[in-house]
Amino acid sequence: MNVKAYMTTLGEQARKASRALVRATTQEKNAALLAMATAIENSAEQLKSENAKDLANGKANGLDAAMLDRLAITDSGIASMAEGLRQIASLQDPIGEISDMSYRPSGIQIGKMRVPLGVVGIIYESRPNVTIDAAALCLKSGNAAILRGGSEAAYSNQALAACIQTGLKAAGLPATSVQVVETTDRAAVGELIAMPQYVDVIIPRGGKGLIERISEGARVPVIKHLDGICHVYIDDDADQDKAIKVAFNAKTHRYGVCNAMETLLVAESQAQAVLPILADMYAEKDVELRGCEKTRAIISANVATETDWATEYLAPILSIKVVADVNEAMDHIAEFSSGHTESIITENLSTTRRFLAEVDSSSVMVNASTRFADGFEYGLGAEIGISTDKFHARGPVGLEGLTSQKYIVLGDGSIRE
Amino acid sequence: MNVKAYMTTLGEQARKASRALVRATTQEKNAALLAMATAIENSAEQLKSENAKDLANGKANGLDAAMLDRLAITDSGIASMAEGLRQIASLQDPIGEISDMSYRPSGIQIGKMRVPLGVVGIIYESRPNVTIDAAALCLKSGNAAILRGGSEAAYSNQALAACIQTGLKAAGLPATSVQVVETTDRAAVGELIAMPQYVDVIIPRGGKGLIERISEGARVPVIKHLDGICHVYIDDDADQDKAIKVAFNAKTHRYGVCNAMETLLVAESQAQAVLPILADMYAEKDVELRGCEKTRAIISANVATETDWATEYLAPILSIKVVADVNEAMDHIAEFSSGHTESIITENLSTTRRFLAEVDSSSVMVNASTRFADGFEYGLGAEIGISTDKFHARGPVGLEGLTSQKYIVLGDGSIRE
Repeated sequence: MNVKAYMTTLGEQARKASRALVRATTQEKNAALLAMATAIENSAEQLKSENAKDLANGKANGLDAAMLDRLAITDSGIASMAEGLRQIASLQDPIGEISDMSYRPSGIQIGKMRVPLGVVGIIYESRPNVTIDAAALCLKSGNAAILRGGSEAAYSNQALAACIQTGLKAAGLPATSVQVVETTDRAAVGELIAMPQYVDVIIPRGGKGLIERISEGARVPVIKHLDGICHVYIDDDADQDKAIKVAFNAKTHRYGVCNAMETLLVAESQAQAVLPILADMYAEKDVELRGCEKTRAIISANVATETDWATEYLAPILSIKVVADVNEAMDHIAEFSSGHTESIITENLSTTRRFLAEVDSSSVMVNASTRFADGFEYGLGAEIGISTDKFHARGPVGLEGLTSQKYIVLGDGSIRE
Repeated sequence: MNVKAYMTTLGEQARKASRALVRATTQEKNAALLAMATAIENSAEQLKSENAKDLANGKANGLDAAMLDRLAITDSGIASMAEGLRQIASLQDPIGEISDMSYRPSGIQIGKMRVPLGVVGIIYESRPNVTIDAAALCLKSGNAAILRGGSEAAYSNQALAACIQTGLKAAGLPATSVQVVETTDRAAVGELIAMPQYVDVIIPRGGKGLIERISEGARVPVIKHLDGICHVYIDDDADQDKAIKVAFNAKTHRYGVCNAMETLLVAESQAQAVLPILADMYAEKDVELRGCEKTRAIISANVATETDWATEYLAPILSIKVVADVNEAMDHIAEFSSGHTESIITENLSTTRRFLAEVDSSSVMVNASTRFADGFEYGLGAEIGISTDKFHARGPVGLEGLTSQKYIVLGDGSIRE
């Protein structure tokens, strides 16, 4: 197979489908999503047997238990894919929304209309449910999608692709609205990210290595986050109960997620009071503590090095630094944060205003756990990823992040004098 | 001079200044802008004598009359730079604007806050007034700026930089908030576009060649447009008076601008009536017409080739195509438009709705001249450029295009259950 020619064909077909999708009604798009949900439920046995081939290959290739777990399609996984499709069908259609229409002195009327981006390329690793989530979000937002899943999930993804096709057909939408790349040749990824004439944006979902490779090579915009080095800062004026509650939740609610706290900053005036209590609570959860010198003078902790401040542990490990005040806290954040999510615990309004204005992260919080940084918690209804870039979409990305706004102008034979 | 080390220093200083600018009050920013305006007026003689050196060098180097004209700083140019600064001072400060705050079932309150992008790099050609415009727009939007003008305007730009410094100093803002690159070494551009750690976005202003080179080499996002191949389509249901008025204005109001019409599409049912009238009007302005076969059966015109449909003339030349209907018009636009601005002339509501929804350009118009695609006409107050990309800023880019939105979350010791 000539991978370049194959990917070019997918690109041409996607571009053409995107022109049909911009005309598709909300009713047609929802009908397709609901038909996909039914198709998935009706194909449960088929999905599981195809998935079993991937699992067998995975075992033979020595995938570890966590990877096999992510790869598995279970009955509850099938139910949740179908439920996800129905939820996305129930969300408001963002396309065509017109805002800010106003008259100008020249007599023209000007506003903005929300429109699809066009063609979205999604590159992901083992989880086959991403095939359904990504297809659904792209379709609802009027975008054609080209999906490239991990080779370890090839049988599962093709079986899910068949359900997607059933849904598109039922609604009379082009079969090429969603295309799942069939070749497992890695060159296909290289082609997909370098076809600006056919693909408008790439969204990589997976480990940092994958995302870095794609960002380096892409010739179109990439919506991504690399790291989640999130901070909680306990301010001089923090309520200690809230501080302890949030600092505990932000670290221990889940470890392997990008919005978990990795570094706790504590104002010197608070350290004596809150650190011993928190240390006991973390100890019960077997969280390893790594502290600065001042921290280690108060509680028992390993030594934190420069590297710790710059590390996303994704594990039951926490680095702790005692700082003089909010200025030192914000300096530390400016130096080491990955721009994902930071939270301050304080009752002081002026300090709050400064922290909100000055901290340059996709989510900035007050008296709340960093774990809230999530599309569902924010009310987006669904999430295709989280962006730590400042361009286009920032923070959790839902349907709106898959759209653009163009200017529309209405006149009455209006000319420029 | 070690250009890499020099540019790195500018980058570090700009990043540091951007953290101070995010704290700057609206009053401080406006005070700086107003002081710059006064400084420019007070330095009129100095500006003209430095500009005279550039003009003398330009003549010696054989610059043509149009380029020398763009390079010249006249008394009226000085007045309009000062006026521009005062206008930008009078615009509403976009920074800190909080929108869409609402409560979620978890109890957190979530919204978005508008914040600066950080550091903006601007690369431009001969016009020295861009130094002032760009500095003012970046400063008002809370961004640090690194400005790299054309080497032919080096003396002028350094003289203007001195006025900018006077303004920053008067307001107590960091001198490094706006830095004008002093070296004329072209390697400085290569460095500026490849420092993602210091520069958040590049805005090139100039010819297509410059913009292509920068887009190819940039390692940060670029706000740009390459071409303005704008279309007017006279629909079956057009009002002929409006059609003629708009088609004439869109071509002849100014020729060398990106929002001028380059191709006129005419529905077959209208061609016999409108083309002869328009041909006479264009003839009076010495506009060369290049037409398809059907056009040439009605009026006298040279042959339009495939190349014509894909050319931005920026000159008194117009290509004309007779099409069957709005579908053929939209197909032609999808194939040849540069995504800048297209306008339909029609009285038909259903056709209007389709054209607005389906044409994928930064501005889509009805019964209005493409010449309206402009930041001032749209009410943005000022314009740093026009973007034909779908990401981030699309269409005329004013202060808002130089900002980003981050999520802010307020809780009360809120944790994720």
